[in-house]
Amino acid sequence: MVERSEQQIAVVTLGIADIARSRRFYVDGFGWKPVFENPEIIFYQMNGLVLATWHTPALEEDMKTPDLARPGAFALAHNVRRHQDVEPLMSRLVAAGGRLLRAADAPPQGGLRGYVADPDSHAWEIAFNPAWPISADGRVTFA
Amino acid sequence: MVERSEQQIAVVTLGIADIARSRRFYVDGFGWKPVFENPEIIFYQMNGLVLATWHTPALEEDMKTPDLARPGAFALAHNVRRHQDVEPLMSRLVAAGGRLLRAADAPPQGGLRGYVADPDSHAWEIAFNPAWPISADGRVTFA
Repeated sequence: MVERSEQQIAVVTLGIADIARSRRFYVDGFGWKPVFENPEIIFYQMNGLVLATWHTPALEEDMKTPDLARPGAFALAHNVRRHQDVEPLMSRLVAAGGRLLRAADAPPQGGLRGYVADPDSHAWEIAFNPAWPISADGRVTFA
Repeated sequence: MVERSEQQIAVVTLGIADIARSRRFYVDGFGWKPVFENPEIIFYQMNGLVLATWHTPALEEDMKTPDLARPGAFALAHNVRRHQDVEPLMSRLVAAGGRLLRAADAPPQGGLRGYVADPDSHAWEIAFNPAWPISADGRVTFA
């Protein structure tokens, strides 16, 4: 018998060196509102999951994994609804403490995308992908 | 004027050394079904976002960021609906090529959680968190 767990990510937690510096990127850059914050952790309610930005030593202790490295072998993507939204958002993220990794250009599948690292070197792809629908409440579907 | 972008993560992309080895962890361990796969990338439709497991050199080229490191300073969480679901899932993940980082125990906020790394050292927290509701369609809400 094959056991199947639902296809669900509940939380993405990023290790953060300086919570105030990171907050500026997410709150002033993306314009997101924390749902909870204290000096060690900030939670943002996302589209069916939660984003946590947590002081790295606390995350390492929770994971029982010392010496977490940067930049990690992963990327997060935020998809915008219009082609013309990509570059202004990337500019706001860089102005809020991000670092440009790749200027926006067209990927092979069409649309537009670039990459900006947050102040802790976590990579965000900012993409307009006309092939993948985004529902009114922000659910993104592979297509 | 403050610009605000919707609070949305469209894709979580993990850098993978060996796609077949990683597939075993996600397909046989979690029991998830790919929505698309080829020898370089596998996509899984999740709860309002997409999980991508992509050959690391291709991700590095796309991000214009060489030498991505492991383990990265991040964790993903998968929340189960019942206390008694945590440990059997962790066991299945380890049997499918995962590595135990932290055996399940009770966090300060209650419930139960442990951590298992996937074959590429990406950390998954497997958690029962009675305070955070999970909707019928898998949306997780901070509470």
